[in-house]
Amino acid sequence: MALALGLGLGVFVPKKLTAVQPAKKPMLVHQVFFWLKKPNKDLKAVMKGCKEIGQIKSALSYQVGVPAATAKRDVIDGSYHIALTVNFKSIADHDVYQEDPVHLKFIADHKDKWEKVQIYDFEVE
Amino acid sequence: MALALGLGLGVFVPKKLTAVQPAKKPMLVHQVFFWLKKPNKDLKAVMKGCKEIGQIKSALSYQVGVPAATAKRDVIDGSYHIALTVNFKSIADHDVYQEDPVHLKFIADHKDKWEKVQIYDFEVE
Repeated sequence: MALALGLGLGVFVPKKLTAVQPAKKPMLVHQVFFWLKKPNKDLKAVMKGCKEIGQIKSALSYQVGVPAATAKRDVIDGSYHIALTVNFKSIADHDVYQEDPVHLKFIADHKDKWEKVQIYDFEVE
Repeated sequence: MALALGLGLGVFVPKKLTAVQPAKKPMLVHQVFFWLKKPNKDLKAVMKGCKEIGQIKSALSYQVGVPAATAKRDVIDGSYHIALTVNFKSIADHDVYQEDPVHLKFIADHKDKWEKVQIYDFEVE
């Protein structure tokens, strides 16, 4: 009703209602780095597990990587063994992923293999 | 010549030459986190700069984000102010980006605004 009135009267329509809004697709990026106790022994198994949890239904997409051979610089941390990126449409979808049985099994199966885990969750548009 | 001989004799063809190989698209992910000295004052300007360098020609794609409101956990570092992801087809393309005038100007214009920069370069398939 307010919108109809606004359209009718013209000047009462706030600019944000009339301006063309670009289609925004906010996305949550869940960026995880793993440092393993025995990378030579366990790298493949943990990477395999990462690929399984990346395919959990509530995740939008994922990627698993290892440190790249870019030139060494003080600002680059290349000491980790596995980089796992899991993208979600929303924090709610991320929360569902955290409790998914496949994710819980991954943690139970592999948590003794890692020395440290560092996570950065960020929101992009 | 070796290949021709192998094909002719059949048994000499190594399996990896005959098996169907999936099309792999290795990608370099350049993941940067910025901690600003004065985030309230400088966040917008540095984010704008990040969007400009993300569009440098040698980059494949990019995204700029800010810490997400996922549940706080010890393993999550949410102390940074900006997350910049720039994807490249190769380390060579990344190296071109590093020396691009737009990237050099970004550093010159904004380096005094950040307290710390942390980078993770990783290769995914």
